Amino acid sequence: MALIVQKYGGTSVGDLDRIRSVAHRVSKIYSAGNDVVVVLSAMAGVTDGLIQLARTITNDPKKQELDVLLATGEQTTVSLFCIMLESMGYPSKSLLGYQAEIVTDRAFGHARILDIKANRIKDLISKRKIVAVAGFQGRDAKGNITTLGRGGSDTSAVALAAALKADVCEIYTDVDGVYTTDPNICKRARKLDRISYDEMLEMASLGAKILQIRAVEFAKKFNVPIHVRSSFNEEEGTMVVEEDKDMERLVVSGISYSKDDARITLAGVPDRPGIASLIFTSISEAGIVVDMIIQNTRKSGLTDLTFTVPKNDYQTAMSIQKEIAHAIGAEEVLGDEHIAKVSVIGVGMRSHSGVAAKMFSTLANENINIMMISTSEIKISCVIEEKYTELAVRVLHNAFGLHEA
Amino acid sequence: MALIVQKYGGTSVGDLDRIRSVAHRVSKIYSAGNDVVVVLSAMAGVTDGLIQLARTITNDPKKQELDVLLATGEQTTVSLFCIMLESMGYPSKSLLGYQAEIVTDRAFGHARILDIKANRIKDLISKRKIVAVAGFQGRDAKGNITTLGRGGSDTSAVALAAALKADVCEIYTDVDGVYTTDPNICKRARKLDRISYDEMLEMASLGAKILQIRAVEFAKKFNVPIHVRSSFNEEEGTMVVEEDKDMERLVVSGISYSKDDARITLAGVPDRPGIASLIFTSISEAGIVVDMIIQNTRKSGLTDLTFTVPKNDYQTAMSIQKEIAHAIGAEEVLGDEHIAKVSVIGVGMRSHSGVAAKMFSTLANENINIMMISTSEIKISCVIEEKYTELAVRVLHNAFGLHEA
Repeated sequence: MALIVQKYGGTSVGDLDRIRSVAHRVSKIYSAGNDVVVVLSAMAGVTDGLIQLARTITNDPKKQELDVLLATGEQTTVSLFCIMLESMGYPSKSLLGYQAEIVTDRAFGHARILDIKANRIKDLISKRKIVAVAGFQGRDAKGNITTLGRGGSDTSAVALAAALKADVCEIYTDVDGVYTTDPNICKRARKLDRISYDEMLEMASLGAKILQIRAVEFAKKFNVPIHVRSSFNEEEGTMVVEEDKDMERLVVSGISYSKDDARITLAGVPDRPGIASLIFTSISEAGIVVDMIIQNTRKSGLTDLTFTVPKNDYQTAMSIQKEIAHAIGAEEVLGDEHIAKVSVIGVGMRSHSGVAAKMFSTLANENINIMMISTSEIKISCVIEEKYTELAVRVLHNAFGLHEA
Repeated sequence: MALIVQKYGGTSVGDLDRIRSVAHRVSKIYSAGNDVVVVLSAMAGVTDGLIQLARTITNDPKKQELDVLLATGEQTTVSLFCIMLESMGYPSKSLLGYQAEIVTDRAFGHARILDIKANRIKDLISKRKIVAVAGFQGRDAKGNITTLGRGGSDTSAVALAAALKADVCEIYTDVDGVYTTDPNICKRARKLDRISYDEMLEMASLGAKILQIRAVEFAKKFNVPIHVRSSFNEEEGTMVVEEDKDMERLVVSGISYSKDDARITLAGVPDRPGIASLIFTSISEAGIVVDMIIQNTRKSGLTDLTFTVPKNDYQTAMSIQKEIAHAIGAEEVLGDEHIAKVSVIGVGMRSHSGVAAKMFSTLANENINIMMISTSEIKISCVIEEKYTELAVRVLHNAFGLHEA
């Protein structure tokens, strides 16, 4: 018999009927003799509603107190869930973040887990209780409530699975698993049986919003097998696991895309030492994360610097750059919000050449202009005009034969 | 400058506007140089809503998990309150029951406070923070969340005031203070400036629903001065304090009433030893609290036993008594749900005779029949027909001159 950590997201516990159906699923696995630790999110919409409520008071609610407010969301779910299980005759116990001894740093709103002392959970499991842990939350060293940021329940689940040395961490969501690309865009998209942590990291960070990045990082670090699957059916989903030899046979495992970035170009920058540092320090001090950066030096000795930032930070970044351009005597600042990033991902690239060439020629065949390129060991990303996103995903999916099992 | 504990009830924090107005009130007292610890209830209606939600799942939700659910109510209020204070520029910190180190027994749903280690609060106060403590909640020795039962925030506030040796515990509510009787029934009812703990205990237990009984008991035990006042105006309310000589001049300080009880009579009970024990043991084992008991022995050697129980428990108590009547061969079981208890309360009764006589004659003058009588050192209660309640309150209020200051 196994020790299974399961995590159910907001839509999976969206109302009492859904919570009942989760309780049935959990009770079946428990009755088969397994130990089950369930990590639950807030019911769909609850966290957003609470943020809205706080914003009615002030645009900038104190983060530490906002965390206290948001933590009520998962607290509600775990207590309702245990009331449900108990009414069905299954012994259970809810634990909030601090009760599950999930210790984080003090970065309220996006805290990182430092340590989990899973003694209390182990004790409850040994008494054959189903343990329901409030996801997304922890406590700092002083006992203040912290939250882990969007999608934090995934990280709670993986971290608990690591601490408990669970056999598997099942992430239940509203999709069947990880697909070769977005099935809404590409009908030939195929569900993957397995994917490596590294590939999943690239998929997640590039817009396949199935698993929080930090959860995958955690899983990779502690080698926790993750099973991404749907809470709406009984189908097997996708295993996210350590890279194995099987995987290497597949050169490319997925096509991902993101429309979340905007592009900024500082044109005609005097090519002096320290200029790039000046530009990116100011952006980083504003808390803005730069993704891709390209620098072209013109014959004249002037440089064009292009980089991408999250669309949400576009206006801020633009006004910072205009000030800097003025200060350093750059020619002009150009911006473009209508871009998309399309990426080809696969661990097999490490040992196969020609992936980049195939990607560029496939896009060229459709007259899709490539504005920026960035590469890593296991992915190649191209920035293109936003309007070509869906077309690019489909032709790349086809070119790399991803519809074939 | 003083250390003041203030408690605001559900209607006082019923929406964001009300919370803002509480924040203004608190900030004024703080700015005058006082240290302020604020105990908050859940927003009006929230606790009932959560109980309803749990009851949608099962009629008998597991108490321990229900406490986890209900605790979100006060958690929401204190975090919103601190977000409000911080947005107004006042340093504050919310503390949940366990963070305020309010340790209780394990009686989930109606836990009793065993201990408060107020170190964290003292530390925050010394840093000139306004501390907002979630009322109604604590933790047991193992760290499980507990709640203190209806009106439990009053007890939280008084217990904190005792632990902190506060100068006063202000209980803010939707009434101006403690009246000589219910102003809705008797227009001549007068607000009392002071009342003793013992009188307040009798008032509270008899239906003047202003302060939780346990809060008054706690205040009496630790000699915490309570100031009951309205959060809707700036008027002084009523001080609930230790009995002093001044009070003794007033023979009667209030008339209280309750329509919450029903009466049960076992008629023609064989007068054998052990019969009364049999009757009341079965009632008590069903968790029903008996209030008044009267026994009349008839010439025949048979006994009539009459007692009152809460109206909520009336049906259960009746069916238990019918079984018992059958078993012991009593003649019949009679029940009456249409009764009321009217009480005259005053510490001055201890040294003044004639209060009972005056009460009985006043009721007799109005042809109000007295069905049962019970007395204590500082109160006399009569059970009468429910329809005469208001009349009885008015004539007694008048007879004892309570409209005169």
